Amino acid sequence: MIDVHTHYVPRGMSRPSDGPWVRDGSMIMVGSREFRPVGAESWDAQRRLADMDADGVDVQVVSPTPVFFGYDRPVADALDVARRANDDALALCADAPPGRLRPMGQVPLQDADAACAELSRCVEAGHVGVEIGNHVGDRDLDDAGVVTFLQHAASLGVPVFVHPWDMPLSPRLDRWMAQWLVGMPAETHLSIVAMILGGVFDRVSSELRICFAHGGGSFPFWLGRLENAWRRRGDLVGGSEHPPSAYLDRFYVDSVVFDERALRLLVDTLGVERVVVGSDYPYPLGERPAGRVVREASFLDDGERQQVMVGNARKYLGL
Amino acid sequence: MIDVHTHYVPRGMSRPSDGPWVRDGSMIMVGSREFRPVGAESWDAQRRLADMDADGVDVQVVSPTPVFFGYDRPVADALDVARRANDDALALCADAPPGRLRPMGQVPLQDADAACAELSRCVEAGHVGVEIGNHVGDRDLDDAGVVTFLQHAASLGVPVFVHPWDMPLSPRLDRWMAQWLVGMPAETHLSIVAMILGGVFDRVSSELRICFAHGGGSFPFWLGRLENAWRRRGDLVGGSEHPPSAYLDRFYVDSVVFDERALRLLVDTLGVERVVVGSDYPYPLGERPAGRVVREASFLDDGERQQVMVGNARKYLGL
Repeated sequence: MIDVHTHYVPRGMSRPSDGPWVRDGSMIMVGSREFRPVGAESWDAQRRLADMDADGVDVQVVSPTPVFFGYDRPVADALDVARRANDDALALCADAPPGRLRPMGQVPLQDADAACAELSRCVEAGHVGVEIGNHVGDRDLDDAGVVTFLQHAASLGVPVFVHPWDMPLSPRLDRWMAQWLVGMPAETHLSIVAMILGGVFDRVSSELRICFAHGGGSFPFWLGRLENAWRRRGDLVGGSEHPPSAYLDRFYVDSVVFDERALRLLVDTLGVERVVVGSDYPYPLGERPAGRVVREASFLDDGERQQVMVGNARKYLGL
Repeated sequence: MIDVHTHYVPRGMSRPSDGPWVRDGSMIMVGSREFRPVGAESWDAQRRLADMDADGVDVQVVSPTPVFFGYDRPVADALDVARRANDDALALCADAPPGRLRPMGQVPLQDADAACAELSRCVEAGHVGVEIGNHVGDRDLDDAGVVTFLQHAASLGVPVFVHPWDMPLSPRLDRWMAQWLVGMPAETHLSIVAMILGGVFDRVSSELRICFAHGGGSFPFWLGRLENAWRRRGDLVGGSEHPPSAYLDRFYVDSVVFDERALRLLVDTLGVERVVVGSDYPYPLGERPAGRVVREASFLDDGERQQVMVGNARKYLGL
């Protein structure tokens, strides 16, 4: 099984003036604010391999933890963090037998040139792709600079993994992890809408291999509402050459929806060839054992299950 | 077929200083800003009856258009609008044969006492229930005043219909009707989470009959993520006596999800007894013919289809 959605934390990040760092090997900090407790799974290859063996995971794609993206910081600062984090990820993955841990890099997406250059450096250094946040401030994935970057990834032939981050803050979302439980699915929903209605899939090469975290957010469940709006309110909801449902073969989603009925909606709506296993390991809002819902799904036959567990990820990653 | 989710517009609303009104029988205005074009379907019983006959709808529940709620305005102003709109709705429904158009009222939910009093007046006047917005500014449905109101509705034995409104504004949501396509499903998602984790279902009478518009927003699709979070991060995500999945028999959702695969998720997750037909008539983001996805759903047998089309709504409405 290939798990395309796991995270690491760069252990060796020294304390910046106001950005993310790790305190005492146990807490992600943003400046002086405690952001999230973390453990050795986040940077220790042996701990990860033990969990992978327990869960039956052969390969983990190891991606950044989004709080380190820093798209809201000066480019030079975000690039500095990206370089050090990306090198840390290579070192982490080198501690495992070849091929079991495969790093994805991060880039300062607020600057297309810097982002493209860092991606090129990453690919030469051994990263298998890149994780990006789903927006850069008020710019969504149809922003010209982001599209330039996506086209660069397509030209390099490396996959892009889109993770929600930087969710809106409001008193209503400041309880019960609502930013994660409600905000994240809405963020990814909006970003797939932006890819479609913003004409990105019309403009960017069909060689682009892109995957959205958490089952594509709420997008797959609301495709029908979008399709109806595109047809009946084309004056406001147009923007793409074709109806939204025509673009479902342009992206992948991961399987971390926790429930067979939700996984079934993904497979029935997007197609079994569009779903890859993701777990969000090692975070508590992730799935353990990784891939459980795919292994247990009664509606998948053995060939389909194998496709979701391995075959689709090989195509997505270009292995 | 009973359609529990349709809207009307109070034709006779004179222009307030800054609130909603109707210009020339063709445009909902908010102060001097154009909000939405509307047609005679919004207030003409004969036009509605013709569409109902064409769609095979026997009964419409006729609810306010949320922009008239005015929860952000002074209580006296919102109450004034509510009274006049509620009386307009009664007049509209009286223009149809008995029982075919059944009005739901609106209340100034920012003030529990005024809201309870107006609901009592509505019920005596012939309204079958009440539609409320899913939040009052930063207060969600677990706010003490809102819970007082919900308990009052339960004690009167009348149903509550929860409709998303007042979606966050941001440049990213100001395109493609994204407030409606992405914002509304997230709003309702958050509000069901608030009912559960805010302990409302634990505190309020189980006699409360409550239904959430648009299939319950993104809640049903993300139940698994919520359940996992409740179990693994109870320190942050607790708040309810039981796990979230224990409350699925406490509310209804409507069927306006446009796609058989999404409807199937609703039925499989919440139970066939929890889904009622809603169309969002007469707005273009609604379903026409009303109830199409329910009529065409291949996974429902005849008894289940009848239950969704009629039986569940009778129970919800108390008919």
